[in-house]
Amino acid sequence: MSTSGFVSALVAELGPRCRVITDGDLLASYRQDMATVVPGGLPAAVVLPRTVADVSAALSLATRFEVPVVPRGAGTSLAGGASAVDGCLVLSTEALTAIRSLRPLDRLAVVEAGVVNAHLDRAAAEHGLMYAPDPSSYEIATIGGNVATNAGGLRCVKYGVTRQSVLGLEVVLADGRVVRTGTATTKNVAGYDLTGLLVGSEGTLGVITAATVRLHRRPVVPPTTVVAAFASLEAAGEAVARIMASGPEVSLLELLDGTTLRSIDEWKRMGLAGIDAMLVVQVDGRLPDDAAQVAALCAEAGAVDEAAVSTDPAEAEELLAIRRLAYPAAERLGQCLVEDVGVPVSRLPEMIRRVEAAAARHGVTVLTVAHAGDGNLHPTFVWDHGVAGIPPAVAAAADEVFAAALELDGTITGEHGVGVLKAAWLERQVGPEAMALQRAVKAVFDPLGIMNPGKVLV
Amino acid sequence: MSTSGFVSALVAELGPRCRVITDGDLLASYRQDMATVVPGGLPAAVVLPRTVADVSAALSLATRFEVPVVPRGAGTSLAGGASAVDGCLVLSTEALTAIRSLRPLDRLAVVEAGVVNAHLDRAAAEHGLMYAPDPSSYEIATIGGNVATNAGGLRCVKYGVTRQSVLGLEVVLADGRVVRTGTATTKNVAGYDLTGLLVGSEGTLGVITAATVRLHRRPVVPPTTVVAAFASLEAAGEAVARIMASGPEVSLLELLDGTTLRSIDEWKRMGLAGIDAMLVVQVDGRLPDDAAQVAALCAEAGAVDEAAVSTDPAEAEELLAIRRLAYPAAERLGQCLVEDVGVPVSRLPEMIRRVEAAAARHGVTVLTVAHAGDGNLHPTFVWDHGVAGIPPAVAAAADEVFAAALELDGTITGEHGVGVLKAAWLERQVGPEAMALQRAVKAVFDPLGIMNPGKVLV
Repeated sequence: MSTSGFVSALVAELGPRCRVITDGDLLASYRQDMATVVPGGLPAAVVLPRTVADVSAALSLATRFEVPVVPRGAGTSLAGGASAVDGCLVLSTEALTAIRSLRPLDRLAVVEAGVVNAHLDRAAAEHGLMYAPDPSSYEIATIGGNVATNAGGLRCVKYGVTRQSVLGLEVVLADGRVVRTGTATTKNVAGYDLTGLLVGSEGTLGVITAATVRLHRRPVVPPTTVVAAFASLEAAGEAVARIMASGPEVSLLELLDGTTLRSIDEWKRMGLAGIDAMLVVQVDGRLPDDAAQVAALCAEAGAVDEAAVSTDPAEAEELLAIRRLAYPAAERLGQCLVEDVGVPVSRLPEMIRRVEAAAARHGVTVLTVAHAGDGNLHPTFVWDHGVAGIPPAVAAAADEVFAAALELDGTITGEHGVGVLKAAWLERQVGPEAMALQRAVKAVFDPLGIMNPGKVLV
Repeated sequence: MSTSGFVSALVAELGPRCRVITDGDLLASYRQDMATVVPGGLPAAVVLPRTVADVSAALSLATRFEVPVVPRGAGTSLAGGASAVDGCLVLSTEALTAIRSLRPLDRLAVVEAGVVNAHLDRAAAEHGLMYAPDPSSYEIATIGGNVATNAGGLRCVKYGVTRQSVLGLEVVLADGRVVRTGTATTKNVAGYDLTGLLVGSEGTLGVITAATVRLHRRPVVPPTTVVAAFASLEAAGEAVARIMASGPEVSLLELLDGTTLRSIDEWKRMGLAGIDAMLVVQVDGRLPDDAAQVAALCAEAGAVDEAAVSTDPAEAEELLAIRRLAYPAAERLGQCLVEDVGVPVSRLPEMIRRVEAAAARHGVTVLTVAHAGDGNLHPTFVWDHGVAGIPPAVAAAADEVFAAALELDGTITGEHGVGVLKAAWLERQVGPEAMALQRAVKAVFDPLGIMNPGKVLV
């Protein structure tokens, strides 16, 4: 069918109701997401629906004209999950911004896809509650994208990933049908878990327009922060093992590797010489000795000097600063590919060694930080500015990292999603049988294959 | 195809490898599960596979002969989820009893379907860990059935339902294909969440042969138990609201209604006159004032007398005894239908009133206990022994209860599953669009429709 016919029909039907972009320059700004190594195609149009009915109308037209649809939240994907394809309709959820309801006693909220994660969390805070999932992009990323990718974050080690905070969804299928899944209850076993199937489906099964999410009790005292330095990765890995095995419940447990620390030190001169790994830990429970226990476990595992401990929010921010510097320190060195593998916690040190070995073998720079309590690593590959696309040495090293994660009983992606970047790797992880089931499930929801083509299943 | 041909082939192929039952009397013992109001059909054969290969071989034969297959764990379903159909193959997982691995540092175990829930929990306890999901049947129910029904339990209010403890599955499809889903990591977003789709699918998509499950840290001190009595249901509901809104995190929060208390009192003479609701609460955290805070919140909500508080395990058992008497007190009165609706916590008192009104309107006896912190109620309908099937008045009252749950934004089943008993109600809850998707998903996994026919989707 003709793309121009589609665009005309879209403008005629949706134009009076919501924003429709058909201008070339503006269209081009919707080519990519934050995975800038994925070039992205040029959309035929971008629509910003204001209601579920708008979404339904736009998808009905896309089905009629068989035009591919790329759903887009805030465009913060690091896997190319929202990268456009030529001639597609980009369906942006940025104008779906209502918090439809927030019920403190039931500890839930019904929020539209375009609500920014941090805005929801602040609305919950007014009632002593919090929205737990906190991907690093939480100040700009939206709930729709978080749900579509089953986003993780730093607090996952205590509160779980996005899936654990989603009770139900409102979704529009490729043909425009509106489906509601789940309930407003924490327990529900009526029929198959379509909610769970749609969480993390990366826009390939439908467009999530709203979610019923759980809210958690907000910690009544500020978290206590502990920072410990180690002369070896093994010692830090041992500290992680001890904390997870016999420590208090932590709400954040981050690891920075030697390459990351040296990059930060070269930049900020923080006196990190001789330190090959660092742990940043938070506990948000109310027991006063929790942090001391974490510090003691770090010492037993061989921490260099005494761990820094602070309950003062301003001081805690200073301690967390080093973790926040990790990505800027990498970006300062060149272009970045932020990877996202996961392994069982016990394999974490081995996995970091594998990353280092792959980097050395291919002569590429890799800085690794990890959500250590979840065994989720972000090896960040860095290369010179001005180089177009992923250099072959980086691609080869990244492939070795994925293979190592699978060999260590892990996953190619812990929280970023498959997107475009890992689509070629999915079958190696899940196997041909699960892959066949996934393809068949996709066909149930999207028989024409117009939803987010090129992502997840290729 | 001929059933006798199937049975001969089954005996020939599986007989040398595992137990195959074809004897009439023994077959009859596999007709029903614990939902004794469902009469069940007579199986053509029962097979007790010892390996995944046995399961695969049995299902391949069932597909070849187009024989319906009823997967069965310990047969503790209260919804008829394991009730047989005439001429079917009952595939019992009771001989798949290996704990394949238990990895304390990674806090996970790989267990076969026939492992009893309590056995896994005890194995975990040796490492200071626990398997959190604790359906009331945990001393006899098996992990396969727990996973197939996404079983709940008393500790769910803190630790979540079975789904939250399952990382991956080994499943055999109707045609004998073995599929592995998920990973050994707590975070994984590689492809669609087939694990979540299979959890709670009640044997209609395949046979779960093993699960990779998460283990939690075992509380280091015994839980503290608080019991509070109320002169009205509203006061107890208010206490639940206050505990959930501003109390400490509870690990158990059970409510008994007036009818239940009167039935227990008539039997055991516990001096419960004037009490119309009771809360049994546990906290398993380490803060000494948690229980006092729960007791204070109960007092503020209008508890009769002071709440009983105990940290002594033996004394706690005595306090819990009244909760454990609820079901025996119902059974003492006659035949029981244990229902399982759920509502948002704020609607709990209203839902119990609706149950009472339905019972009064139809002149039937209903005793209600609730996992109050999850809004999950078990209204137990009681009628005289000797009556065959569910009396029309009970069926009418139960229908009103289901309708009320849906009206209050709830679910027809919080933890027992749809089974046979609620299959006619599923579409009223999920709507025609989600129902159509569920049917299509079922066809992907089980194109011949031989897996657990008559359950969930009818």
